[in-house]
Amino acid sequence: MPVNANRTTLATVARLAGVSVATVSKVVNGRSDVAPQTRSRVQELLHQHDYVAPALRRTEAGARPTIEVQFAGDLRSYTAEALDGIVDAAAEHAVSVVISKPDRAPHWARDLVAAGRRAVIAVTSVYTAAHLDALTRAGLPLVVLDPLHLPHSDVHSVGSTNFAGGLAATRHLLSLGHRRVAYLGGPASAVCNQARMHGYRAAMEAEKTPVPRSYVRPGEFTYQTGLLGTEALLDLTEPPTAIFAGNDEIALGVIETARTRGLRIPEDLSVVGFDDTLLARMASPPLTTVRQPLREMGGVALRTALRLADGEKIESHHIELATELVVRNSTAPVQP
Amino acid sequence: MPVNANRTTLATVARLAGVSVATVSKVVNGRSDVAPQTRSRVQELLHQHDYVAPALRRTEAGARPTIEVQFAGDLRSYTAEALDGIVDAAAEHAVSVVISKPDRAPHWARDLVAAGRRAVIAVTSVYTAAHLDALTRAGLPLVVLDPLHLPHSDVHSVGSTNFAGGLAATRHLLSLGHRRVAYLGGPASAVCNQARMHGYRAAMEAEKTPVPRSYVRPGEFTYQTGLLGTEALLDLTEPPTAIFAGNDEIALGVIETARTRGLRIPEDLSVVGFDDTLLARMASPPLTTVRQPLREMGGVALRTALRLADGEKIESHHIELATELVVRNSTAPVQP
Repeated sequence: MPVNANRTTLATVARLAGVSVATVSKVVNGRSDVAPQTRSRVQELLHQHDYVAPALRRTEAGARPTIEVQFAGDLRSYTAEALDGIVDAAAEHAVSVVISKPDRAPHWARDLVAAGRRAVIAVTSVYTAAHLDALTRAGLPLVVLDPLHLPHSDVHSVGSTNFAGGLAATRHLLSLGHRRVAYLGGPASAVCNQARMHGYRAAMEAEKTPVPRSYVRPGEFTYQTGLLGTEALLDLTEPPTAIFAGNDEIALGVIETARTRGLRIPEDLSVVGFDDTLLARMASPPLTTVRQPLREMGGVALRTALRLADGEKIESHHIELATELVVRNSTAPVQP
Repeated sequence: MPVNANRTTLATVARLAGVSVATVSKVVNGRSDVAPQTRSRVQELLHQHDYVAPALRRTEAGARPTIEVQFAGDLRSYTAEALDGIVDAAAEHAVSVVISKPDRAPHWARDLVAAGRRAVIAVTSVYTAAHLDALTRAGLPLVVLDPLHLPHSDVHSVGSTNFAGGLAATRHLLSLGHRRVAYLGGPASAVCNQARMHGYRAAMEAEKTPVPRSYVRPGEFTYQTGLLGTEALLDLTEPPTAIFAGNDEIALGVIETARTRGLRIPEDLSVVGFDDTLLARMASPPLTTVRQPLREMGGVALRTALRLADGEKIESHHIELATELVVRNSTAPVQP
């Protein structure tokens, strides 16, 4: 596999130096057929742009190409399942996977290049603008798995069809006769949450079912949001008979608040989650949820990262895999 | 940090060649003050023992020391939390963590050494005897986190006080007035399961509470074992009023079977889990469980692996961290 060519940096330096990329490449590779003045100008610019020489980037004999996977906070069920997909795909491609949390050290991205990393995969949006900038300057390809925010078109990302998932979850509840359906979601600013919520709205509108303002509650993608949001929803004068939760953790909070209020799920309240992590499969009752193919998404992220590291052009900067409704025991026809 | 000295191999080769370790070391380091005949005999033996020269093992400038963490099967909640502890400790020590699943390739362990790995951490018992043998021959230190089977005294391992945890869980149930307490556990052959079960037996005996044969059921550490085992226990003529489950996944299966039979937890049936993964915190009701300090265990495993890689002698080949009972809402006084 060719060494990551650090293409962006080489092209930038060529442009600034007023020479061809081939000339810059000659300087980098220590070839003698470059005028001394050109050589020193190019070397200066390479230094300014944090270019890391191939000698430093090349991994030694026996070492596999290595991808760095970064995640923030705790390694939860969701991240773990995506990571599992990355590890399996990496084994197929004889690639090593290093895992870490984002670093704030100034030479962070350069250090990754120097340590032989070929590319970085970020699980959800863990980087600041400064991080992204450092990666670009170091010429290190990045793939974001399930971005929370709308990625720049120069960042590659892998997600799932959140809108279609929201639509399917809500249609399922409507088909069971529910009309008082609420959405208890994640951060209002997160694009994946917006897409799920708009899928919900689209399904409700298609059935000409009004959505009271109080039925749409943003929060965090946490159990706590599920607990407290359900309290608020059940305190309404017209409480919902069904709740579409923005992810499985929120849905587990819904189940627990229902229990403490003496409501049975699904007889008295239906709930649908999102993600289909092991939390959904082991909930009581087992959770009807929208499956994100997390393992497959991890595999696509790994393969995209490798293609970028090889200097390939990727057909689209964002790819979405299909979500799928998985019906279990937390949803039932509305009580007459 | 000194390069892993591959001490076992050097000592073995020295013994077989009838020379001192210092002489073998001279051969390895290319020193000239060794008789040619001795040199070739030692080199032949080093080759036979899969010795990897330091030149191949040394990582390049800029690369951090790297530890390989291996786990089998899916990256579940339990493994993910231990891994999280390893990653945090690795960041503190400026060490990189590569994750993978065990490989069956013949040169597996040698390849890890050649790729610059300083040590291996296995999360639970993932290795065959052949794996262990290959690691020993490659001189690669190994630490097993929470071994399922009694580790050899030449394998280093980190676990938790399973017996004390089983004792605490059962005493808690006894203190709530339960006398019909069952143990629904993992594999009968797993030492951690045996320790939990004997903790349970010890607590029952101390209270002179008989344990019917049918009250102790081994299985797997899975939700499925919880579902089916609870069916069997509740079908007994004298069903238990409380179940101590061998881990949290089993406990979630207990909760679900209780629900399908119309039994309320904790009013009609108390249940205690083991591990305190996020599954316990998000169960409905939140699970009373025995906490294994998984993150801390991961940190100890990482530090032990680094000390072994540095050639340090570790005070004990097995270390256990304390378990702790966490009382939540799945246990209540026995019904009169």
